[in-house]
This record gives sequence, structure tokens and C-alpha cells, in this order.
Amino acid sequence: MSDPEHDHDTVLAANQRFYDAFEAGDLDAMSDLWSHGPGTACTHPGWGTLQGWGAISSSWFAIFQGPAPAQFILTNPQAHVSGDVAWVTVDENLIGIHSAQTVAAVNIFERQGGGWKMVCHHGSPVADRDTPDG
Amino acid sequence: MSDPEHDHDTVLAANQRFYDAFEAGDLDAMSDLWSHGPGTACTHPGWGTLQGWGAISSSWFAIFQGPAPAQFILTNPQAHVSGDVAWVTVDENLIGIHSAQTVAAVNIFERQGGGWKMVCHHGSPVADRDTPDG
Repeated sequence: MSDPEHDHDTVLAANQRFYDAFEAGDLDAMSDLWSHGPGTACTHPGWGTLQGWGAISSSWFAIFQGPAPAQFILTNPQAHVSGDVAWVTVDENLIGIHSAQTVAAVNIFERQGGGWKMVCHHGSPVADRDTPDG
Repeated sequence: MSDPEHDHDTVLAANQRFYDAFEAGDLDAMSDLWSHGPGTACTHPGWGTLQGWGAISSSWFAIFQGPAPAQFILTNPQAHVSGDVAWVTVDENLIGIHSAQTVAAVNIFERQGGGWKMVCHHGSPVADRDTPDG
């Protein structure tokens, strides 16, 4: 029933919808793409982990109220599907008004009702240094 | 075949083995608990994301060569199992020689050969402020 190549593509499409909603500051789209069930968690860069859609939606509301809409250039997306769960690692290159910053992210999706719903987002700032091993 | 409560406990045990290996600086134990298959990724606090066991094992080797062994107090572990994949969010309260730091982590495990193998670890520093929404 599940086609690995198709799954891979639909997971990357779900991942893109997340960043489209983020960039647009669209809380309805964000609500639609997140799971509202158990196991949801969200860690914004520098924040503690938020558990459950209530806390997560409040955080997006607060972020979308902020002054500077983010613009993303996504690089190095890697999706891996295992049954009804998928995880995507991706570099978010954020172009803000005053600065640029790379955030390393992992996003977890769960197959629900035939579609992929986000169950976890974790983003963390990549320190400005030459190489991770340097 | 799969018992949700049992799965929940065995995932938390696998998660604990990861921190035991980390604290002990035990590369053999680390190698044993990580998946060596596709889809593995590791993001240390402030680092870019490493893909694949080769790069990941090198990072642990480098970290274990470092001067100060970390000591962890783990708080608020939340495990969620969906089929053959599980994700755990946990706060790593690191007690170092010179400082204390909280790292928000998400760890992803995949059921392989009847046991849970780590496929993704992502840790990020929690900024020192009163509340995330403050």
C-alpha cells in the first residue's frame, strides 16, 4: 500500500507546507498541518520544549505577532520514512531584516488519515564557526 | 504483538542507555545503541546536523576526547511510540566543572531486530531567561 518513493515525496511536501505557513505567518495553515493528538512537541531555537498543541499553537501565535517575518532558504533536506512515521532534517537559512542565521532542524511527521501531520519540530541555532569539528 | 505500555518503557530504557553511554564516554556502547543504517542524524548543541553513523561516531569520539565529562540530570522525559518508531523529548541538565546548562533534546528510535536503535539525536541549549514567552 505504501510506496517508499511516493512517501518520501509527500513527506518533503508536508515539510515544505510547514515552512510556507511559517513564512506566511498563517496560523490556520499551521493548525492544519500539525497533529492535535498526543506526542506533539515543539522546541524553538533557545526555547524549552513545548508539549501539546495548546502550548505549541500559542507559541506560533506569539511568533507571528512579532515584528519581522522570517524568510527561509532551506538547504540539505533529508527525509526518512519508517512505516507511519517520518523524520526530516533540514537547514533553515533565515534571512531577517538585521541578520542571517542558520538553524538546524528536525521535523517528525506521523501518517494520520492518509496524510502527514507534524508531531515534532525542533530547531536550534548553528554557532558561527568554520566547521563543527574545527 | 506490540504492547504500548511495554514499548513505552523499553523506549525510555533505550533513551537512558544513550545518556549512560554519553556520561561514561563509552564509544562501544554508543555504537551499539545507534542504528548504523540509513536515516541517522545527530545535531549537537550549536553544531550543524551530521548525517550517517560515520560522521556521528567521529563526533562522539571527538566529544569523548574532551576534557570535562558531562553529568546529566534528566528531567521531563516524554516518550511517544507510533508503530516501529518512537520519539522522546527530554531536558538534559548538564552539570559541568565550570557551569550548568539545560539542553532541550529530542531523540528518535527505530525498532530494529526487536530492539530500539537511536536514529536521531538533536540537542539545543535553552537560553537563560525567565520564561519562553517572557
